Amino acid sequence: MSSISGLVEDEISSFFESSPPLKNKEEIVANLNQFIELNSSCQGGMRRIVCVTSGGTTVPLEQRCVRYIDNFSSGNRGAASTENFVKAGYAVIFLYRRGTCQPYCRYLPDDPFLECFEFPDAKNIQVHGSHSGAVKMAVMDQQAAVAEGRLLKLPFSTIYEYLQMLRLIATILKDVGPCSMFYLAAAVSDFYVPWLSMTEHKIESGSGPLDIRLAQVPKMLSILRSNWAPKAFCISFKLETDSKILLEKATKALQKYKVHAVVANELLTRKEEVVVVSSSGNVVVRRDSNKPESIVEDNLIRLLVDRHSTYIKESLT
Amino acid sequence: MSSISGLVEDEISSFFESSPPLKNKEEIVANLNQFIELNSSCQGGMRRIVCVTSGGTTVPLEQRCVRYIDNFSSGNRGAASTENFVKAGYAVIFLYRRGTCQPYCRYLPDDPFLECFEFPDAKNIQVHGSHSGAVKMAVMDQQAAVAEGRLLKLPFSTIYEYLQMLRLIATILKDVGPCSMFYLAAAVSDFYVPWLSMTEHKIESGSGPLDIRLAQVPKMLSILRSNWAPKAFCISFKLETDSKILLEKATKALQKYKVHAVVANELLTRKEEVVVVSSSGNVVVRRDSNKPESIVEDNLIRLLVDRHSTYIKESLT
Repeated sequence: MSSISGLVEDEISSFFESSPPLKNKEEIVANLNQFIELNSSCQGGMRRIVCVTSGGTTVPLEQRCVRYIDNFSSGNRGAASTENFVKAGYAVIFLYRRGTCQPYCRYLPDDPFLECFEFPDAKNIQVHGSHSGAVKMAVMDQQAAVAEGRLLKLPFSTIYEYLQMLRLIATILKDVGPCSMFYLAAAVSDFYVPWLSMTEHKIESGSGPLDIRLAQVPKMLSILRSNWAPKAFCISFKLETDSKILLEKATKALQKYKVHAVVANELLTRKEEVVVVSSSGNVVVRRDSNKPESIVEDNLIRLLVDRHSTYIKESLT
Repeated sequence: MSSISGLVEDEISSFFESSPPLKNKEEIVANLNQFIELNSSCQGGMRRIVCVTSGGTTVPLEQRCVRYIDNFSSGNRGAASTENFVKAGYAVIFLYRRGTCQPYCRYLPDDPFLECFEFPDAKNIQVHGSHSGAVKMAVMDQQAAVAEGRLLKLPFSTIYEYLQMLRLIATILKDVGPCSMFYLAAAVSDFYVPWLSMTEHKIESGSGPLDIRLAQVPKMLSILRSNWAPKAFCISFKLETDSKILLEKATKALQKYKVHAVVANELLTRKEEVVVVSSSGNVVVRRDSNKPESIVEDNLIRLLVDRHSTYIKESLT
């Protein structure tokens, strides 16, 4: 693999140097190490480990943050994919935006404490019949995945937290080699206000319009591939609202960042179909429309797990 | 009351004219009318009705929205205040940002379905002892408030939804007169991208920095006071990160918008104390630090309910 340019590397270093440091870094590292150790000593050898990123990152506009730029993402894709990876035998590091959709919780109503439960007396809680499947899944399946060491949940909010955590995970996963995967479904900010050039206090709304100049976030995918975890199987996502430019941009991303596949999806149809763009060609993956409970992630994860198996075999020979 | 200037009125009209229309307007109007009717025909006459706004509004940067500017607000203040208003005998219209803190749910952990419950067998759900008080409150107290017609929850996300819903509520509450209150705790965007000048598709992250010009959101408080609901008791909020300018800005807002009080709070100390700024002087309201479970909203709502009582009496004479 060709090394990335010195310019990009400088940009990335200066991004990290100027970032506010992670608050609970030691705890995250300890949890990650424990999780990887547990999954390295399974019966039958190493379990495959995937890092699923999910939800949007925020970009603060003020150091004492009142306003920020956010990227739309419900986190549904990441949550559903996590469930499918666990089902396929993977251990999942779920790096998610606080407050977004959680694995096994996709069928809960918006306001679960108002709608799902009742107390027939002050001692006993009951689940309303119509929500019993959703609540069981959210409680039993989720707790089982965590208890069995198959799911580690790590929350972020800002672009600074996200990228520092991704770097931590990637460098800790380095030794797992080809058995590790990155499934980068998070909606990562393209633009940000560099921390040091940011105003400390709330921007005043005195009079007239407000002009904001945003810098480009350095693209970390290249360095993830070349330095952080070069042997991991790496899937990135490309979301566009304009179908005309989607495949072209996905193909460019594939070449530029040298990931193993780019999942291209359009905002309006993203729950019906995606296109997996890779060096072996484009594959359209659709939801199974004959089954109402089917989701596009069922077929997408099946395809990617197959590709990952091939990748592992090829790495060993 | 002096009428607001024609210029401001023009700005406000053009804001609403260019806003994407509310999707479920008929349903909201029907719910509001039913709620107000129910609370107008209580034993002992009209129940007081307060509209509590809570959480931050978003400003889309693209029409098919991928990126937006958000205002930080957990919604904790609005949720806690709602509980206190219900306790004080009010009916509450809770106009809240989707996903923010809900009344009666403030003591739930971040990840309630992972932490609060267990299924000892596949049929029966139990609440873990340590969370039983929090879950009971979230389920029983919340459901009781809704069932008794004391709490109507209406969610928003964008500044367009928020301001259209606020206008609806205010005009429907107009007939309730002095018995109605507005408690405007939401963090409302000061700046926005006018819908018609907004790009349809996702902004491309080609190369170089991105410049955004944001226009000022017209201040709706004046028109709420002068036209929408001139007889309602009206409380607004002022949040700053810089304590030096806080009281000055709160006093200016009091004079400019002719509200009955401005609750001034600083980002870092907002859970410990606030200052109620009104024409009768400034009152510092603190959390009762001798009681660990006490919150600043206990004393704040007590003070405002007293002020509202006086206001109603004076309106009748």
